Amino acid sequence: MSEELFEPAPHVLSGDTADVYFLRTRHVMEAEGLNPVAAMEIFPRSDGLLCGMREVAALLRSALPSGAVVWGLEDGDTISRREVVLRITAPYLSYAVYETAILGILSQESAWAQAARECVEAAEGVPVISFGARHVHPLVAPYMDYAAIVGGSATGSTPLGSRMAAKEPSGTMPHAMIICFGDTVDAAVAFDKHMEPEVPRIVLVDTFLDEPQESIRVAEALGERLQAVRLDTPGERGGVTPELVKESRARLDQAGFQHVQLFVSGGVTPERIREFLSSRAPVDGFGVGSYITSAAPNDFTADLREVEGKPIAKRGRIPGITENPRLKRIM
Amino acid sequence: MSEELFEPAPHVLSGDTADVYFLRTRHVMEAEGLNPVAAMEIFPRSDGLLCGMREVAALLRSALPSGAVVWGLEDGDTISRREVVLRITAPYLSYAVYETAILGILSQESAWAQAARECVEAAEGVPVISFGARHVHPLVAPYMDYAAIVGGSATGSTPLGSRMAAKEPSGTMPHAMIICFGDTVDAAVAFDKHMEPEVPRIVLVDTFLDEPQESIRVAEALGERLQAVRLDTPGERGGVTPELVKESRARLDQAGFQHVQLFVSGGVTPERIREFLSSRAPVDGFGVGSYITSAAPNDFTADLREVEGKPIAKRGRIPGITENPRLKRIM
Amino acid sequence: MSEELFEPAPHVLSGDTADVYFLRTRHVMEAEGLNPVAAMEIFPRSDGLLCGMREVAALLRSALPSGAVVWGLEDGDTISRREVVLRITAPYLSYAVYETAILGILSQESAWAQAARECVEAAEGVPVISFGARHVHPLVAPYMDYAAIVGGSATGSTPLGSRMAAKEPSGTMPHAMIICFGDTVDAAVAFDKHMEPEVPRIVLVDTFLDEPQESIRVAEALGERLQAVRLDTPGERGGVTPELVKESRARLDQAGFQHVQLFVSGGVTPERIREFLSSRAPVDGFGVGSYITSAAPNDFTADLREVEGKPIAKRGRIPGITENPRLKRIM
Amino acid sequence: MSEELFEPAPHVLSGDTADVYFLRTRHVMEAEGLNPVAAMEIFPRSDGLLCGMREVAALLRSALPSGAVVWGLEDGDTISRREVVLRITAPYLSYAVYETAILGILSQESAWAQAARECVEAAEGVPVISFGARHVHPLVAPYMDYAAIVGGSATGSTPLGSRMAAKEPSGTMPHAMIICFGDTVDAAVAFDKHMEPEVPRIVLVDTFLDEPQESIRVAEALGERLQAVRLDTPGERGGVTPELVKESRARLDQAGFQHVQLFVSGGVTPERIREFLSSRAPVDGFGVGSYITSAAPNDFTADLREVEGKPIAKRGRIPGITENPRLKRIM
Amino acid sequence: MSEELFEPAPHVLSGDTADVYFLRTRHVMEAEGLNPVAAMEIFPRSDGLLCGMREVAALLRSALPSGAVVWGLEDGDTISRREVVLRITAPYLSYAVYETAILGILSQESAWAQAARECVEAAEGVPVISFGARHVHPLVAPYMDYAAIVGGSATGSTPLGSRMAAKEPSGTMPHAMIICFGDTVDAAVAFDKHMEPEVPRIVLVDTFLDEPQESIRVAEALGERLQAVRLDTPGERGGVTPELVKESRARLDQAGFQHVQLFVSGGVTPERIREFLSSRAPVDGFGVGSYITSAAPNDFTADLREVEGKPIAKRGRIPGITENPRLKRIM
Amino acid sequence: MSEELFEPAPHVLSGDTADVYFLRTRHVMEAEGLNPVAAMEIFPRSDGLLCGMREVAALLRSALPSGAVVWGLEDGDTISRREVVLRITAPYLSYAVYETAILGILSQESAWAQAARECVEAAEGVPVISFGARHVHPLVAPYMDYAAIVGGSATGSTPLGSRMAAKEPSGTMPHAMIICFGDTVDAAVAFDKHMEPEVPRIVLVDTFLDEPQESIRVAEALGERLQAVRLDTPGERGGVTPELVKESRARLDQAGFQHVQLFVSGGVTPERIREFLSSRAPVDGFGVGSYITSAAPNDFTADLREVEGKPIAKRGRIPGITENPRLKRIM
Repeated sequence: MSEELFEPAPHVLSGDTADVYFLRTRHVMEAEGLNPVAAMEIFPRSDGLLCGMREVAALLRSALPSGAVVWGLEDGDTISRREVVLRITAPYLSYAVYETAILGILSQESAWAQAARECVEAAEGVPVISFGARHVHPLVAPYMDYAAIVGGSATGSTPLGSRMAAKEPSGTMPHAMIICFGDTVDAAVAFDKHMEPEVPRIVLVDTFLDEPQESIRVAEALGERLQAVRLDTPGERGGVTPELVKESRARLDQAGFQHVQLFVSGGVTPERIREFLSSRAPVDGFGVGSYITSAAPNDFTADLREVEGKPIAKRGRIPGITENPRLKRIM
Repeated sequence: MSEELFEPAPHVLSGDTADVYFLRTRHVMEAEGLNPVAAMEIFPRSDGLLCGMREVAALLRSALPSGAVVWGLEDGDTISRREVVLRITAPYLSYAVYETAILGILSQESAWAQAARECVEAAEGVPVISFGARHVHPLVAPYMDYAAIVGGSATGSTPLGSRMAAKEPSGTMPHAMIICFGDTVDAAVAFDKHMEPEVPRIVLVDTFLDEPQESIRVAEALGERLQAVRLDTPGERGGVTPELVKESRARLDQAGFQHVQLFVSGGVTPERIREFLSSRAPVDGFGVGSYITSAAPNDFTADLREVEGKPIAKRGRIPGITENPRLKRIM
Repeated sequence: MSEELFEPAPHVLSGDTADVYFLRTRHVMEAEGLNPVAAMEIFPRSDGLLCGMREVAALLRSALPSGAVVWGLEDGDTISRREVVLRITAPYLSYAVYETAILGILSQESAWAQAARECVEAAEGVPVISFGARHVHPLVAPYMDYAAIVGGSATGSTPLGSRMAAKEPSGTMPHAMIICFGDTVDAAVAFDKHMEPEVPRIVLVDTFLDEPQESIRVAEALGERLQAVRLDTPGERGGVTPELVKESRARLDQAGFQHVQLFVSGGVTPERIREFLSSRAPVDGFGVGSYITSAAPNDFTADLREVEGKPIAKRGRIPGITENPRLKRIM
Repeated sequence: MSEELFEPAPHVLSGDTADVYFLRTRHVMEAEGLNPVAAMEIFPRSDGLLCGMREVAALLRSALPSGAVVWGLEDGDTISRREVVLRITAPYLSYAVYETAILGILSQESAWAQAARECVEAAEGVPVISFGARHVHPLVAPYMDYAAIVGGSATGSTPLGSRMAAKEPSGTMPHAMIICFGDTVDAAVAFDKHMEPEVPRIVLVDTFLDEPQESIRVAEALGERLQAVRLDTPGERGGVTPELVKESRARLDQAGFQHVQLFVSGGVTPERIREFLSSRAPVDGFGVGSYITSAAPNDFTADLREVEGKPIAKRGRIPGITENPRLKRIM
Repeated sequence: MSEELFEPAPHVLSGDTADVYFLRTRHVMEAEGLNPVAAMEIFPRSDGLLCGMREVAALLRSALPSGAVVWGLEDGDTISRREVVLRITAPYLSYAVYETAILGILSQESAWAQAARECVEAAEGVPVISFGARHVHPLVAPYMDYAAIVGGSATGSTPLGSRMAAKEPSGTMPHAMIICFGDTVDAAVAFDKHMEPEVPRIVLVDTFLDEPQESIRVAEALGERLQAVRLDTPGERGGVTPELVKESRARLDQAGFQHVQLFVSGGVTPERIREFLSSRAPVDGFGVGSYITSAAPNDFTADLREVEGKPIAKRGRIPGITENPRLKRIM
Repeated sequence: MSEELFEPAPHVLSGDTADVYFLRTRHVMEAEGLNPVAAMEIFPRSDGLLCGMREVAALLRSALPSGAVVWGLEDGDTISRREVVLRITAPYLSYAVYETAILGILSQESAWAQAARECVEAAEGVPVISFGARHVHPLVAPYMDYAAIVGGSATGSTPLGSRMAAKEPSGTMPHAMIICFGDTVDAAVAFDKHMEPEVPRIVLVDTFLDEPQESIRVAEALGERLQAVRLDTPGERGGVTPELVKESRARLDQAGFQHVQLFVSGGVTPERIREFLSSRAPVDGFGVGSYITSAAPNDFTADLREVEGKPIAKRGRIPGITENPRLKRIM
């Protein structure tokens, strides 16, 4: 796991992505010669899973002067509503301008991680893979994959996101490739011929023909080298149902292809995962996209609780440091 | 509006943020010598507002060979469920690897733009400002601000996002600054002293004292130079209510400060905006954050509909080009 | 239309299917020498469509003595909750034992007719065919088909039911026949070879292959003689959706088979018919089964309102004849 | 129990009540000389109670050639959704035309039996009697009574239905008889005078006077010979309530008629039965009609799973025989 | 209408029913020599009908010194949520101790008046009579009757309440009286014999026999002198239904008693009144009890808005007099 | 506890607040010379808490002749729907006219007592005080306070109501007093100076400033003599929230005022009490008003069950005395 993948971008460091009022605050307070040592605490709006702390720690290491003290939890920790997950004690102007970035990183990545965890828990051991890159901006797609893996996904679909989590990316083949070849078996045979051996042969089987029919054709073409078929039936054809999985399994088995696994994608949610499992559909892997990417951010809030060692707070908050024995010194 | 702010990042161009199977597709098809001219169409899952096309156009200009033909709609266009908003006709491998990025850009930015538009429509002319940077990853915060402005927001809070839309960023001051000064009036006076004249004097008035009381103290200190006060009352104090706005207005007026405007932030949604308006609370501006940033992506889908001039499609879709007279040639 | 199809069965005439207390009533009143001229009125529990009157009239003609007077409405009349649809004035013992049969005929057939009418109204001119024989006991299947036709269905699937309504029965071919042939095209060709020319060539296309693929294979085999294909996709494959109809239409048209019609069956209800129509799916005929057969009986009630010319009624009812100018003298 | 009551009617055997496409299938396949040994399996859509197997078995005995093999469950067996309840292995054309009848018999009778069972279970030992003949066509009324008895009812109201189940039919007297006599007591006395002694004296008491008042008048007239009164209060008078039962009991007891039982009819459902029981209303018997007759058919489906010994099935079903150890060889 | 019926009771004037803190306030402020002229405004929580002002005015006339100014609305005025209905400007201690009483009078009486009005509006001209005295404490029963009449009721059941509104009280006879006589007709005849002629003969007919039967017996006994029968069927007998009213009307008419009116009581609400009317049940009067008496108080609030001529208010309220042009000077 | 506080008022004794038909009944029966010994039973419509029996007993002692027998339950007893709580056996005319008053007293007071009990049970030991006098007519305000105390409230706010229950009334100070003083601290100091020492110093702290700020100012002024502050934040300011209580506690503690208690009022219901407790807000007392006063009366009903020793009852009721071993002889 290479730490440089978590380093802050230059325009984040410059404050160009911050709320402008922090830049103005810095300007005014510098002009007044005011820069007290202040303790800021950060906490989430909802229960969930924490993610983004590695990035935040890298940002703080770039920004804070020596003498600064930082306590925090770690990526993958379970967190409670309003629990303090990060406390920075340092001259206020050294970090004021990064409040926006810190909150944004934690809010969005924690939400993705939590959504992934809900799928993983529903799947009871069946692997879940993050397939959501196509629903988010490419600049954050890798962070989404990373967060999904923190939430328990086996891996993600983007090279960069997987690399952040020290995993190999996962993927089969797109419908477009099969359409270019004009036949699923032709596409599968070409894939098998040219791909390095360690890439699993997983073939998409809903493009042109009924899925069990196509599965058997592909299995006959690739034989033992075929690891799995992926069912991604579109909504216009009813989507993937537990019965389709069971029938595909039965027809593959009757044709002698017990070794071929079944992967399911398309509209997968924790609820649908539980339906597959409760109806005993023999799924070997789930691809999850929009359930993770449509998770609303778990908004985090930052509060000053102490200035120059004295408890203080805005109305509605309790002045002074909040005890949280789970915090660890991280700087 | 400088176009370079919409240029693709190097690791997007390299495919490092793409679904890995597109990289594998390129590898296999190149090895097979297969690269047909293919027409891909892109359409959204839901009705809404389109955003992201400027970025997508810049990406396609970097990627496509001469001879490629692209038709599309524009940022700010109203779109319908399943309406084709983009059609690329070019050798398939020239753009295959960018499907993930194109869909992701459109999905997330269109959702933000639509959410902003819902607030703007509810506000019936009262300005709406995008305050959501703190809820999203800093790498996409400017794109979120840009999308919110496409959706009708007056401006956003980040310098970079506002610049993309040729606007000035907006912001007042954080609670933290007031806490560092120890008194709202002291902070307001310093802000007024050091800020360039064109920055509006808008002061946050819920930090230490009851809002109407603090509003009058600030107004007495800054006089005519005070443009507005911002009410951001925390949930622990009941949040901002229409009655609080009305009472603040009445007390400011009774004290002779009719010129001081009232800005409202904190949990603002279209529904709450409508409540303020229907109860005739005299709000002069709304700051909206999480309603925009928690909008689930409006997922877009890409389909090949023609290969080497012949209609084709996967099961569930209708082969051949989909007519849409609204499309304009953009390349 | 042959009236003998509506004649009562011997064990209905004998009272063997009646509530036993009517037999006992006859026994007691005969022993007492009591047989007053009584007026009985019959009315439904719910608004709806009337069906069963031809059978009831035939039964009364067999049973009543000369001098009896009967007023009634007709099959296919729209009726209101509690509206009198039949009034018998005759010596009570001449019809007492048939109350059970009269009410049962009207209750069940009126419900079937009303359910069919709801489908027909939803279909706005697209033909609806009664396919529900398999959900009801074979002794009443023809009456169900007759009632569905009274409700507006184009015809039914049973020879006897269609004959009652002077229609030709409708039907394509069962999945079992295709399975016996082993291929849809082989079955279609044989059907075409051996059936008299006036039987429409309508082929079921969801047995082995994806529906649009199979439709084109069948169209290529039968050419102009193919009237329609029937889509009856099972729930395990998502059922028939508007999108499947549209895509089948598009692919048939692209292959040059604009003359081939599309029939839809399987779980068809008024609500689903409206979905097909509102999404502009080009359906040429609907087969409706369980919506009609699962209609709960529209229970009818019989009340004595006059005995020997004097108004009388049980508690809860108003004594004396109920005026209804829509009634016609039928005996 | 005489088996001939379960024999198929001639027009069922002739196929006149079948879906016409089975007749056409027989015509085509005979013309092609195709009549493979095929295994058909039949299963229900919902959990429930099985009824109709005696009739189906009689039909198959009339139809199948020697060498045919039939496995099945029995009337009164509890069944699960999609459980195979019948498997026929025989030359396909020997039974093809009876698929409609077999499914119809099982669908409708199983639904009636299940609805009756729900009432019986709710009644916790208090007898339930099938009173629904007036809501169904007289040709099926006896089958409905038979099914209700299979579902646990004590007996039914039709002589033929009761005979099928080797029971005596039950019945009191109709309102019409009392109206003809002009007084409940006069009717009760005549009934008592002329009926054979083994018919229970049960008198309807809501025709002219308030129920407890009438109950006492009847009890005074018939004394020890009065077995029960039946409360059938119409909805216009509020229907039968638990309080009415309790008060009738109390007033009968206070007048010295502790031996007179209370029967309740009119709108009785499992839910209302539970209300009577939970409020400790001393009901001695329930008459149930429309709850049973308005039960929607539990639709059964037939699938070929094997042709000439080889597994086969349509899309959506799993090829080959389905194991079910509960099946017994019935032919 | 005698004003003394609205005079305050001595223990109200003494402050013994006030919140004790007003007595303490008086003690403290007198000790401090503080008694400023203060303006208090009073407004309701909900839209509705105003009642209680006559009592409040009488209380203020007893309490306020000369020079005091009072503006207000009147009993029977329609009022809006938060509309000022009363403004007192006087030395604060002259009325401080009566805030509790004033608010309580208005809160409870306005709620009763509004509930009555809802019934009256639903009844569309059919008289409504207040029968709720038995659900409230006898000390407020007359005020409840008065408020119901302000809300549009024809009259009430208590002598004192009716007198306050210058009406004659209404009443028929209790079940208990009929039970003492042992027969409804005997009670009716005695009532007719001994009552002064101006008291209407209205007889309760559900005590012992079925209502239509009893109605005819009473009508035969009293003839033209019988004005109406009252149907008050208990819930144990299903309550009064529209069908019961219609049947009673029909049977009375058939017996020649078209002049006898039908009064309905027992669980009457605006919703039930609308059911009677929409089903065209010929009701001649409704007795309403618990719908009026179970109306939750429409809580009123009192606020000081001006002290010694200067605007002031507590947090949450707007300082200074609230304009309301509907107010009239009442003192 | 002085019994005279429970004595009936003269106009209750005179029948002026009774339903007028009881007065007419007395007139008719006296004229007929009919005054049988009758047993009347009284029971409630709903489960709940009994209150009003002391008043009723006083009324009966004034009214009944010697020889009368009365059985009953007591104030504070838990009662069940339809349970007999009072049985009077006496010459009917001696108590006929008091039926209205007896039912009204029990109906309204039992409802208040039950509502108070629900709050008390929710509060799990934290004191609840009745503050509802301002929502009810002053003539019943003391009875409401008495009932609330029977339901478990620590005390009430009216001198008379508290006296009925042998308690001291409770109260702090009104907003109006603070507004007259112009400052909360000035008002608090004056209160402290002039009140006798046994009156607790409880100061309202939401009038002018933010509550925690004002609490500390008051605590600094009164020091150890300050027992509690009362939070009564208006809805316009979000009402009192658990977070406000916690923050007030924390800020008071940080300022060294651990001894100052926190009282909460304004919109308090059992549900809100449970929210405060489940979120561990350190509340020391709850003031409850409209939850108690808006309780709908628990309507009581009176039935004659025996006349001159013989069981009798109207339709819908069971004749004769109802056994209830919980009843005690009270006269």
